[in-house]
Amino acid sequence: MATIYDIGLGAAFNIVTATIFLLIFAFLRLQPVNDRVFFPKWYLKGMRDSPSSAGAAVNKYVNLDVRSYLKFLSWMPAALKMPEEELIEHAGLDSVVYLRIYLTGLKIFVPITILAFGVLVPVNWTNDALDDLKVVHSDIDNLSISNIPYGSKRFIAHLVMAYVFMFWTCYVLKNEYERVATMRLRFLASEKRRPDQFTVLVRNIPPDPDESVSELVEHFFLVNHPDHYLKHQTVYNANKLADLVEKKKKMRNWLDYYQNKFERKSKRPTTKTGFLGCFGSEVDAIDHCKSEIEKIGKEEAEERIKVMKDPKSIMPAAFVSFRSRWGAAVCAQTQQTSNPTLWLTEWAPEPRDVYWSNLSIPFVSLTVRRLIIGVAFFFLNFFYVIPIAFVQTLANLEGIEKALPFLKPLIESPSIKSFIQGFLPGLALKIFLIVLPTILMYMSQFEGLISQSSLERRTASKYFIFLFFNVFLGSIVTGSALEQLNTYLHASANDIPRIIGVAIPMKATFFITYVMVDGWAGVSLEILRIRAFVLYHLKNFFLVKTEKDREEAMDPGSICFYWSEPRIQLYFLLGLVYAAVTPLLLPFILVFFALGYVVYRHQIINVYHQRYESGAQFWPNVHLRIIVALIASQLLLLGLLSTKGLEEATPVLLVLPILTFWFHKYCTHRYKPAFVRNPLQRR
Amino acid sequence: MATIYDIGLGAAFNIVTATIFLLIFAFLRLQPVNDRVFFPKWYLKGMRDSPSSAGAAVNKYVNLDVRSYLKFLSWMPAALKMPEEELIEHAGLDSVVYLRIYLTGLKIFVPITILAFGVLVPVNWTNDALDDLKVVHSDIDNLSISNIPYGSKRFIAHLVMAYVFMFWTCYVLKNEYERVATMRLRFLASEKRRPDQFTVLVRNIPPDPDESVSELVEHFFLVNHPDHYLKHQTVYNANKLADLVEKKKKMRNWLDYYQNKFERKSKRPTTKTGFLGCFGSEVDAIDHCKSEIEKIGKEEAEERIKVMKDPKSIMPAAFVSFRSRWGAAVCAQTQQTSNPTLWLTEWAPEPRDVYWSNLSIPFVSLTVRRLIIGVAFFFLNFFYVIPIAFVQTLANLEGIEKALPFLKPLIESPSIKSFIQGFLPGLALKIFLIVLPTILMYMSQFEGLISQSSLERRTASKYFIFLFFNVFLGSIVTGSALEQLNTYLHASANDIPRIIGVAIPMKATFFITYVMVDGWAGVSLEILRIRAFVLYHLKNFFLVKTEKDREEAMDPGSICFYWSEPRIQLYFLLGLVYAAVTPLLLPFILVFFALGYVVYRHQIINVYHQRYESGAQFWPNVHLRIIVALIASQLLLLGLLSTKGLEEATPVLLVLPILTFWFHKYCTHRYKPAFVRNPLQRR
Repeated sequence: MATIYDIGLGAAFNIVTATIFLLIFAFLRLQPVNDRVFFPKWYLKGMRDSPSSAGAAVNKYVNLDVRSYLKFLSWMPAALKMPEEELIEHAGLDSVVYLRIYLTGLKIFVPITILAFGVLVPVNWTNDALDDLKVVHSDIDNLSISNIPYGSKRFIAHLVMAYVFMFWTCYVLKNEYERVATMRLRFLASEKRRPDQFTVLVRNIPPDPDESVSELVEHFFLVNHPDHYLKHQTVYNANKLADLVEKKKKMRNWLDYYQNKFERKSKRPTTKTGFLGCFGSEVDAIDHCKSEIEKIGKEEAEERIKVMKDPKSIMPAAFVSFRSRWGAAVCAQTQQTSNPTLWLTEWAPEPRDVYWSNLSIPFVSLTVRRLIIGVAFFFLNFFYVIPIAFVQTLANLEGIEKALPFLKPLIESPSIKSFIQGFLPGLALKIFLIVLPTILMYMSQFEGLISQSSLERRTASKYFIFLFFNVFLGSIVTGSALEQLNTYLHASANDIPRIIGVAIPMKATFFITYVMVDGWAGVSLEILRIRAFVLYHLKNFFLVKTEKDREEAMDPGSICFYWSEPRIQLYFLLGLVYAAVTPLLLPFILVFFALGYVVYRHQIINVYHQRYESGAQFWPNVHLRIIVALIASQLLLLGLLSTKGLEEATPVLLVLPILTFWFHKYCTHRYKPAFVRNPLQRR
Repeated sequence: MATIYDIGLGAAFNIVTATIFLLIFAFLRLQPVNDRVFFPKWYLKGMRDSPSSAGAAVNKYVNLDVRSYLKFLSWMPAALKMPEEELIEHAGLDSVVYLRIYLTGLKIFVPITILAFGVLVPVNWTNDALDDLKVVHSDIDNLSISNIPYGSKRFIAHLVMAYVFMFWTCYVLKNEYERVATMRLRFLASEKRRPDQFTVLVRNIPPDPDESVSELVEHFFLVNHPDHYLKHQTVYNANKLADLVEKKKKMRNWLDYYQNKFERKSKRPTTKTGFLGCFGSEVDAIDHCKSEIEKIGKEEAEERIKVMKDPKSIMPAAFVSFRSRWGAAVCAQTQQTSNPTLWLTEWAPEPRDVYWSNLSIPFVSLTVRRLIIGVAFFFLNFFYVIPIAFVQTLANLEGIEKALPFLKPLIESPSIKSFIQGFLPGLALKIFLIVLPTILMYMSQFEGLISQSSLERRTASKYFIFLFFNVFLGSIVTGSALEQLNTYLHASANDIPRIIGVAIPMKATFFITYVMVDGWAGVSLEILRIRAFVLYHLKNFFLVKTEKDREEAMDPGSICFYWSEPRIQLYFLLGLVYAAVTPLLLPFILVFFALGYVVYRHQIINVYHQRYESGAQFWPNVHLRIIVALIASQLLLLGLLSTKGLEEATPVLLVLPILTFWFHKYCTHRYKPAFVRNPLQRR
């Protein structure tokens, strides 16, 4: 059983690890050769260029300026310095509001930590229930609620604190919701006139035997929105055309490459016409590329005409533009025909945000898909252990020996054998957990959402549910979700919070370690960008031919909302659940939020390239999940205290989730419309 | 234990009772003196007058035409004859769609009854599990699922039938939803230009120090809806004015009375100025009335000016009219300002549908009220037994003797004593159950809904929940809802359907009796209109002075949606639950629906006076509750079969509620908008 000393040791170890990561980062980022790995955002903005070839060649790759190494932590204040307004300008509202999630974490947990250490820790510490009971316990438990004897009046302190924590959390949440809503509205209003603010996406246009989709749309909007309709753009299924465009682009790149080569060596390069330029007859490379580009250009033009004419490639969807934001706002918010499944209108997502493949799914198909995914996700969440266990039984030593007999001598050697035996069973699970967000993303895509941003939001919800059941509850009840499901079905509604609540204090040390290993290390690894670092240098070495290629080798990445936000939420959940039970966990959460805030602020300024701008539309989801965490924490505290011999506590605690739920309803009514609709009032 | 013979006897008795009621009705309705009780609708429409005084005086009161008695059941075909289109014209869409609830019941249960008797009854009957077990059982149980031995493959018939029943019910529901939605849209489109179709109700107008509400509204809509805004009407708090108007109206009635009297007796009547015309100095009645009317008229004018000027009596709400339906549709469906709690717009209810007192409740207050009522309803639903038990302990014999000692000799007499002892304990509960819908209505009013129709809908939902827990589940689990709550909290999610499901077959006879007593007798009593009958004749005898008074004494009543619809839903629930378990219950349900349909069609044609027209806005609620009944029936069947030794049944049955829920989501998406929004498309 872990003592405070063990935890301290673990913390020290993790702090050292994180510091080493940060030091490596501080060193690597100063090397010009890595500039494109650690500052790609500035390249994309055109504000930085490849190191000039003037000066010593070595300066191009290694930083020899000693003074710059002395200020190796200077990136931290630099990351914090940029004011919010400028950051919105620089990286978009989505990124800034994403940072506010960490900030919200700090705002919620700093006062809670102070209060918990000021009130609850002394109340817990000055008991000796655990010593009296003579149960095996660690000194961490002395700081937790477990140390208070059965039926003690001291639990009143925890009750009062539960109320204080709820009110404080709700207060912060309300302020943040209000703030983000204001930011969003200001952002939408202050932007330069973006076309998508005047545009509405119309889907499920009914087929008409007499008119083409384009004519139909025009007639419909001329009749029903005569004063505001401007023009429209139908959506074509032009996959083949897109292939041709891509091919032409590649060929242009080759042309650049050969021309560069020709300039440097003043000898016309040659290539072969066959596969990968390795076979076939030799031709002049520049001429070959030029003729190829011309040929593709012709094909492209033909394909374009074909697509425009072919009724099969016209999809029953269109982007309709209006003369005024008012007209677009009206059209997006209203129902067009008496059949609410036809002529569905909504605000057009940004062009780069549109998820094109889903634009033409008919209504009935959409509802069927939603049902299928609902059922599939339920099974994924609760039964994912079954196929993994099945794979594990297959992927044992004998199985491998049978399938790949030539490996037998290798595997039989004792050291490798023991390694495989220790490693293999966990492998399937590890792979599954790494692939999981991608699987969930595919599921969301199948559901038929029409923008990248909504796909990410939906996937994040699914992932959070998975983490909640399989990581959080799974670690507490220690059983697979399938076994849990069995427990939930067979235990009464009364007993479920009790079963979980009682186990909570015992898992504090586990979660402290989890926060350090997953949270701290994860964040410091994020800033190192190992994957991007390795890939960039590999590409740079083997593939890069032209400046354009180097541009493309650089992978700025982006905030992976669907993957990272649910993980942050897990820390909110842990913090709120343990705030009243084992306050010792809170400082670890605080460090996570602070570190995460600085690191992600740095990344957003220097690295990430925004893929789309949704105007912080994800905030209602963030809010909802913190509310879920709060209610879960209250129910689990209820379950825990119901075993502590204080009957009066139950009704008092029952008020908490009701109030929290009501608060959520209030906020949803009050602020959510700002994220869904655009108001009509002229500013 | 009831046998089929007992049930038959009960049925015969109830049929006879119902027939007697119908005969009495057939007799009474033919008497001219009752004309205003049984045909008030025609009077209100101005299509009937009081029996002319020409002819024998006796003819005014008694019908002496023998032939008319021979056709005493002729009202039935007459009630069914009026085509739906004409009925909509005559009684409004609400009434017609209300009748469709009964019709839906018939459509759902006629094929289900035939199937159940064709398939399930033979399957159940040809076993002798109950005989083998030698348990005490009645021959009704031989027809029910209880008669099939443990683990028998015959349960497959019930599984298949559960699927068939679900598909059939959903098919009927979908058709009905579609039909009603079409009817609603046609109704809205075909009506004469009603002002409320061009009008939007604006609430929560923010206070402005510089402008009055009226100016503010005008400016706001001139700016934000310049092309469509026509005019507006602010809402005043004019309770005092309304009192004066009422007073004036009464005085006018007296004036009529005295003038009639004067004409008949050609002697000027006199009255006294004091209380109730019994004290004070004697004056000429006609002159007195005239001067009083004049005086009130002046006060009224003053009060009117005062109200218009006084800023306190101006409420932050207004009815805004638009030039076109399009403009109103746009304004009602869109959000006006960035703060979604200000300038709330929605379609204006019909003038007679508006619930005036709730128009000016601010947003925060609304959400708090909703929370309070939510909690209060929860307690009412589960804990109502406590205050009633308390009243019961108070209202015993000794309590009465103490409070009212003079009654002591009366109470002490043995016959009265035993009567009170048998009667009192139930009295509090009976009174509570009678008053309950009214209590629920007050709760809905407190919640701040702004139209009569939405109040009725909300109250109906509450009442249905109450009936579901306290009548349906309460009769099956036989315990107060409080005890049930205890069971639900302490039993596992798995066990709850099992506990209830197992008890279901045993309660079949109870519910059969319930259907006969509550359903059959209730419906036949409805047509007799005993309360209206007695009140009318009492008023006619004692109070009626003028023709106008007689008009007012006539109480046509109206469909009490919030009171009667949840009771119909109870029969849907019983029918669906017992369809696969004890099919014998189904014919009784069928009789209820058929009788109810005929009776209510008659009442709607001849009696009820529509209080408002919401355009069948209640249908989504009706649909939802039938879905709830269907899902409940599936879960209970699941619980029941899980004790019958057929493990394969559980997953097969679990598919049912999922499909049903999905079907509901689909229907909501597809049809509900027709009941909430108005489409923009021009017709």
